[in-house]
Amino acid sequence: MAKAPVLTPQSDDFPRWYQDLINKAELADNGPVRGTMVVRPYGYSLWERMQSEMDDRIKRAGADNAYFPLFIPQSYLSREAEHVEGFSPELAVVTHAGGKDLEEPVVVRPTSETIINEYFSKWVQSYRDLPLLINQWANVVRWELRPRVFLRTTEFLWQEGHTAHATFEDARDYAAKIHREAYEDFMVNVLALSVVPGRKTKAERFAGAINTLTCEAMMRDGKALQMGTSHELGQNFAKAFDTQYLAKDGSREHVWQTSWGSSTRMVGGLIMGHGDDNGLRVPPRLAPIQAVVVAIKEDEGVLAEIKAIADRLSAAGVRVRVDDRTDTPFGRRAVDWELKGVPLRIELGPRDLAEGQAVVARRIPGGKSPVSFEKLTETVLAALEEDQETLLRESRERRESHTADVATVEEALEASATGWARIPWATLGVEGEKQLAAQAVTVRCL
Amino acid sequence: MAKAPVLTPQSDDFPRWYQDLINKAELADNGPVRGTMVVRPYGYSLWERMQSEMDDRIKRAGADNAYFPLFIPQSYLSREAEHVEGFSPELAVVTHAGGKDLEEPVVVRPTSETIINEYFSKWVQSYRDLPLLINQWANVVRWELRPRVFLRTTEFLWQEGHTAHATFEDARDYAAKIHREAYEDFMVNVLALSVVPGRKTKAERFAGAINTLTCEAMMRDGKALQMGTSHELGQNFAKAFDTQYLAKDGSREHVWQTSWGSSTRMVGGLIMGHGDDNGLRVPPRLAPIQAVVVAIKEDEGVLAEIKAIADRLSAAGVRVRVDDRTDTPFGRRAVDWELKGVPLRIELGPRDLAEGQAVVARRIPGGKSPVSFEKLTETVLAALEEDQETLLRESRERRESHTADVATVEEALEASATGWARIPWATLGVEGEKQLAAQAVTVRCL
Ligand SMILES: [Zn+2]
Ligand SMILES: [Zn+2]
Repeated sequence: MAKAPVLTPQSDDFPRWYQDLINKAELADNGPVRGTMVVRPYGYSLWERMQSEMDDRIKRAGADNAYFPLFIPQSYLSREAEHVEGFSPELAVVTHAGGKDLEEPVVVRPTSETIINEYFSKWVQSYRDLPLLINQWANVVRWELRPRVFLRTTEFLWQEGHTAHATFEDARDYAAKIHREAYEDFMVNVLALSVVPGRKTKAERFAGAINTLTCEAMMRDGKALQMGTSHELGQNFAKAFDTQYLAKDGSREHVWQTSWGSSTRMVGGLIMGHGDDNGLRVPPRLAPIQAVVVAIKEDEGVLAEIKAIADRLSAAGVRVRVDDRTDTPFGRRAVDWELKGVPLRIELGPRDLAEGQAVVARRIPGGKSPVSFEKLTETVLAALEEDQETLLRESRERRESHTADVATVEEALEASATGWARIPWATLGVEGEKQLAAQAVTVRCL
Repeated sequence: MAKAPVLTPQSDDFPRWYQDLINKAELADNGPVRGTMVVRPYGYSLWERMQSEMDDRIKRAGADNAYFPLFIPQSYLSREAEHVEGFSPELAVVTHAGGKDLEEPVVVRPTSETIINEYFSKWVQSYRDLPLLINQWANVVRWELRPRVFLRTTEFLWQEGHTAHATFEDARDYAAKIHREAYEDFMVNVLALSVVPGRKTKAERFAGAINTLTCEAMMRDGKALQMGTSHELGQNFAKAFDTQYLAKDGSREHVWQTSWGSSTRMVGGLIMGHGDDNGLRVPPRLAPIQAVVVAIKEDEGVLAEIKAIADRLSAAGVRVRVDDRTDTPFGRRAVDWELKGVPLRIELGPRDLAEGQAVVARRIPGGKSPVSFEKLTETVLAALEEDQETLLRESRERRESHTADVATVEEALEASATGWARIPWATLGVEGEKQLAAQAVTVRCL
């Protein structure tokens, strides 16, 4: 059955498919100020689920949430030399406030290492105050010249963790722990993306870090997306802000620090990692709506039964929504739920009701089949489990089949046209990295 | 047993008591930019609990969360005449970004009516799209000349709801529903503050509203604090942004709107509504930590038992924390938990352990007594219930005993020195309101 495609096909124009999906699934709009975005309710519900899962993991790793100001005195940024150099071109500056020009302009935070260190240096006195493990959920601003919704936006939402430790080893281990137990665990086990954890090269590191860990995921166009990074900051900020502690032996030492962040860019990663020509496909463990129970048409018995089905599924722990908007044609609603990537659509019409069954349509493997009311809950639970595994397996297989082991810079360039290349760093080196960079190919991870 | 007070007593200097408590309980610090604040982990955990309870109520009332940009083109603010007049003096303006001066300066949102209406006018087409019920959790900026932590800060955190309806009546009813089912219900049943719901006078209304509902709570110094407001916006913003819908009869109509907000100011209300000379007192239903189980000193058996007690309480649904920091003197830790207002402190030393009991210290009614391990969980659950009721009863009694029925403007002025005055609006009127305003007394609610 041929029908006009709802979205530009991925194979025709992947960036356009991405933008079509964001519009049609009502995930986000462009904001009025260049590079900003409006996250619409369904897009935001995906982010809320990401926040909730990440927040649990971050708290389990021992960090507490706090909130630091949006406005940072311009002078703070200058204290760490590499940091200011990295961020200067992207800053938004408030020069006028409360009806007057400000004496010292203030910067809208691009990240909070500087302002947080100012307070860490007050709060940390002795080794007893360490480790100090803080996370914040916030908006940040980095002026974007080539914005793309969710991927590169002037304002984005994120979490940023900031920690202070007594030793280099403790900081290093904590950066790795967050990377593994928060980021990698969430991305693999909830987002169903087969990420590759590793280190960034010196050229790709965070401005002010001595080491950057990254989780890179392969999108369906074969490109990599950085999904979360965890930095060892060494003592760079501690020295710039004089964050010291009194050690057990009575000496004063600078703390060792980490910072780590993940953002609304993950929504972009979800879309490009799992979406297909019919729209988004949301892994069940993430999905704000795991199953939608749809009344095919207006009918008293049908409307009562879809509510009863939803109640039973909800009692079994399924995140469920009822669709009783029978004044909108059924076909249009079905397309809309496909676009939004809800894993299961449970359809019920008067004839189904008479036969004591509903039709279960599956977004992830595709296909639909009738299921009796008695078997519905167990079928739904099993399908959600299976779909989660399917998406992760697809992601892993795509990455493996699109990663080529290469031996030369030329081969690496060729492979990067359709996927990733794996090359020994000894072969590539800093010089090879520069050659790749000249062709817009980046070394994602070591 | 006389000891030096930890805080300035309330009766000596209430504002100083407030600031002392915020410092000593480690709730917040002043930010480096005038009027901003750093919300420290314990202060933030209070806000997170408020967010969680409010978010549940807002979602139950049918609104979905979304996110709109921080930056608003300056021209948007000017479209609604009263709105721009109300907010102009408080705006922070970004004039420079991405390394250049901006062609049109952008305002850091003081509230989002304007930018949200810009999108509502795109999203709303027909009566089928109504009501449109949106909420956002965000930071906002209003430049403060007389800042006070949590109460009046240049940047604060809040939720702002924005809705569009087909009729005046539907908008009016929704503003009232949110006011009753989200704000009043939360403040009375969770915050344990006996708020008075009512309307604002024309002079005190939100800039651009046709009616403002407010929840006013009496603080322990007898003053009122506005804890949440819900506005009927009429068609003012709809006309300014041309937000229209196609009605069932085919005519085009402007929508009717509401907006409603509550903020980190509620943390200030919690402190001033329930705090005493020993610190904060947090109502159990709000408390991020309802009970702390404290090891009096280092002892293997004691450390094992406090964890076992905490596990049992946690399994019974109590939000519990273990305090095993035996390298800090017990007395200092006890004072700290009192300052933080944790309702119950369960203390265990080696002698208690031998006797199979713990000592339960109660922050809200005061006093401590031994309780056998077997009875501990049920004692804790009962105490938490009782403490919640006690705080609400105290709040109601204080408000009733400090509210005087008066007949003249002079009497109202006199009563306002120590509490509230209730006066018929027919007696007061706009002229009387002006007379009161000249003495810095405001008409809080009708
Ligand atoms: Zn100026
Ligand atoms: Zn400039």
